[in-house]
Amino acid sequence: MRAYDIILKKRNGETLVEAEIQFLIEGYTKGLITEYQMAAFAMAVFFRGMSSPELARFTESMLHSGSVIDLSHIDALKVDKHSTGGVGDKISLPLAPAVAACGVPVPMVSGRGLGHTGGTLDKLESIPGFRVDLDVKAYKNLVENIGCCLIGQTGEVAPADKKLYALRDVTATVDCIPLIASSIMSKKLAEGIDALVLDVKVGSGAFMKTIEEARDLAQTMVGIGAHMGKKVVARLTNMDQPLGRMVGNSLEVVESLQVLSGQGPQDVIDLTVELGAEMLVLGAVASDIDTGREQIKTALNDGSALAKFAEIIKAQDGDPKIVNDYSLLPLASQTTEVTAAKDGVLKSVNTEKVGVASMLLGGGRQKASDEVDPSVGIEVMVRIGDEVKKGQPIAKIYHQEKGLEACKQGLKEAFVFQEEHVAAPALFIERVDKGHS
Amino acid sequence: MRAYDIILKKRNGETLVEAEIQFLIEGYTKGLITEYQMAAFAMAVFFRGMSSPELARFTESMLHSGSVIDLSHIDALKVDKHSTGGVGDKISLPLAPAVAACGVPVPMVSGRGLGHTGGTLDKLESIPGFRVDLDVKAYKNLVENIGCCLIGQTGEVAPADKKLYALRDVTATVDCIPLIASSIMSKKLAEGIDALVLDVKVGSGAFMKTIEEARDLAQTMVGIGAHMGKKVVARLTNMDQPLGRMVGNSLEVVESLQVLSGQGPQDVIDLTVELGAEMLVLGAVASDIDTGREQIKTALNDGSALAKFAEIIKAQDGDPKIVNDYSLLPLASQTTEVTAAKDGVLKSVNTEKVGVASMLLGGGRQKASDEVDPSVGIEVMVRIGDEVKKGQPIAKIYHQEKGLEACKQGLKEAFVFQEEHVAAPALFIERVDKGHS
Repeated sequence: MRAYDIILKKRNGETLVEAEIQFLIEGYTKGLITEYQMAAFAMAVFFRGMSSPELARFTESMLHSGSVIDLSHIDALKVDKHSTGGVGDKISLPLAPAVAACGVPVPMVSGRGLGHTGGTLDKLESIPGFRVDLDVKAYKNLVENIGCCLIGQTGEVAPADKKLYALRDVTATVDCIPLIASSIMSKKLAEGIDALVLDVKVGSGAFMKTIEEARDLAQTMVGIGAHMGKKVVARLTNMDQPLGRMVGNSLEVVESLQVLSGQGPQDVIDLTVELGAEMLVLGAVASDIDTGREQIKTALNDGSALAKFAEIIKAQDGDPKIVNDYSLLPLASQTTEVTAAKDGVLKSVNTEKVGVASMLLGGGRQKASDEVDPSVGIEVMVRIGDEVKKGQPIAKIYHQEKGLEACKQGLKEAFVFQEEHVAAPALFIERVDKGHS
Repeated sequence: MRAYDIILKKRNGETLVEAEIQFLIEGYTKGLITEYQMAAFAMAVFFRGMSSPELARFTESMLHSGSVIDLSHIDALKVDKHSTGGVGDKISLPLAPAVAACGVPVPMVSGRGLGHTGGTLDKLESIPGFRVDLDVKAYKNLVENIGCCLIGQTGEVAPADKKLYALRDVTATVDCIPLIASSIMSKKLAEGIDALVLDVKVGSGAFMKTIEEARDLAQTMVGIGAHMGKKVVARLTNMDQPLGRMVGNSLEVVESLQVLSGQGPQDVIDLTVELGAEMLVLGAVASDIDTGREQIKTALNDGSALAKFAEIIKAQDGDPKIVNDYSLLPLASQTTEVTAAKDGVLKSVNTEKVGVASMLLGGGRQKASDEVDPSVGIEVMVRIGDEVKKGQPIAKIYHQEKGLEACKQGLKEAFVFQEEHVAAPALFIERVDKGHS
């Protein structure tokens, strides 16, 4: 078998068989297949796509290129959630404890923030002492005994995907749905999960700008799951404005704690309830979505979800007292308000700009090696459709010395007002539970 | 400027501007742009193509990546011919001396054979003493004083193309018309020519199997020429059977000498006359094609073309006595005939198989580093439409010890007979003198 023939076959629009895919991924992982051959292959996939079974084999080969965690000794359906990323998306923080509190184990391997998007690991690390670098043994132990563990990638998870992602990043083949889908799924399925809920973001703060491409990505990932015997459900949700009020690491922990205490912004509560309900159904703890919703709401309101979070924090060496005393979290003492220049209605938000504005304060990373300042961020005080008066604060910046002016400027550009009334966008766009066949 | 953005632009179907193309080719030549980025770019070009002006700039950048010979001191229009390659295609050998004898200087830089196709340099080197490795000074001198020089590539001609070709060869991006066209044209225009006649082969022995793709390639190359201020005319000619009777190095020299002596097979004569007439018109020595044809025919019949060839051979250190004494050429003494298995009419020839059969004798190269045996080859004794009787010789193999059985087997498979009459295919298919706009 030759890499050349595999590239040619894909270039000509044919479907690769399992042996060809294995040969390609194994050879690439071992360095026997060159970067330039893989680059040509990736570009051919960009133009030709992959069939649903073909893509499942491709994902499976990437998954098995590295270590795969086995949680089969835990006698329950393990369910995780993955979000394609947005601004202010702290949902994992209230969601994982709430679902675990309802009895579904949540083995959650998360990532760090880059560019305009934040990362769950960065948010967790703003909790004093919290460790995300537990080993596999500790991870398994916590999932089994507490019902949840929140960590970063352990060992060499899907090294083929790691190499391929770095290559796609420099060869203009990142925005290719089969390659995005297989990259996400190969990493997620290495966690040892039985089922997965996907939150596919759509809008100005998301990677997917249109419903059509978000739907395509969702169907592609659900299809991969189906071919690999894993239940996957996707929700398309709106990312035309930041989720909740808070953007920034400590700020988002505070907002998550509010939600876990039965308070907090309605959109964060709603998304937690909705995704949580899906997870409870997949985990066979709720018989239907409505029952699942009620169970999650109860967990948020009766303190059991918050108690579960405190338990997780303690088990991962963090200070559980933060759940009742937010002042233990690092928070920038300097604040600056941005005010409305004139009367109007908030028409739209360039949400990516809001994410970048927070990054410029030090709250995010321009490149992967950057350090993150947990104390800074932005409180967004208006939502699309809100009326504002001239001089009214629309955002509050929590800052240290870095990036204030650039942040202010970015925020001024990000919020667009008009005179006419405009309807608030719906948070929930579509539910996808059938994949491409 | 970043290679990434150039790849992205091409991937998205946009047209690159001159500065982008220069950045790409210069960076690639210097090793600043990686092989994997160029591989992704080449695959994007495969799917998106290039506009005619864009491709001309691309060709020009490749041309200027290396040494370009200047023949502007010779006060005449210098014209060359390029063939896309076939089996038994020895046309350069009679053509160059005939055109030079008519007064148009022919600076001809040729290549070697690979796979099923032969190469002009290999054929010339079967002439005892003939050197194809003259330096640029000697080349210029011979073009000026004799009106012709037949050599291999001097110095670093189009190194960007050399690198890109090697990359395309392992990334399944060889059969891409803009990349083929720019590769040919960048090398040809480095010779210092003013005009070019292209012989684009179509059929079972050619790289282009259909008239449509051959026409597309021809129009693409003519278009590149137009944008670069060079007159280019293309002829599409039939390669559904070997050209002439002889396939093999010495054998093809013999057949060329016959044509230069007013004899030889009609198809070799016709193609020499036709391409020669085009060259004389481009070189402004003939006012029209008909006049050109008569001038070439005269040169072939009055001995002036043969004398010019003797002059070239002598100037390039070969033995000019071969033009009258073919026995001075190395020719295998062993011959084996292949005969018809039954009565029939020759329906078709798998011409590529005939080329491979000659290669298997040692007459060609499987890989670029192979040695070529000038003495071996095949005399093809039937043409499409010919009637044969059972037992009648259809081919004569000139061989040494190597490859006889495989050659015989290949030839038996290559010739397909049927009972019904079949018309001989026309040699000339189409003339292309207008490029893609």
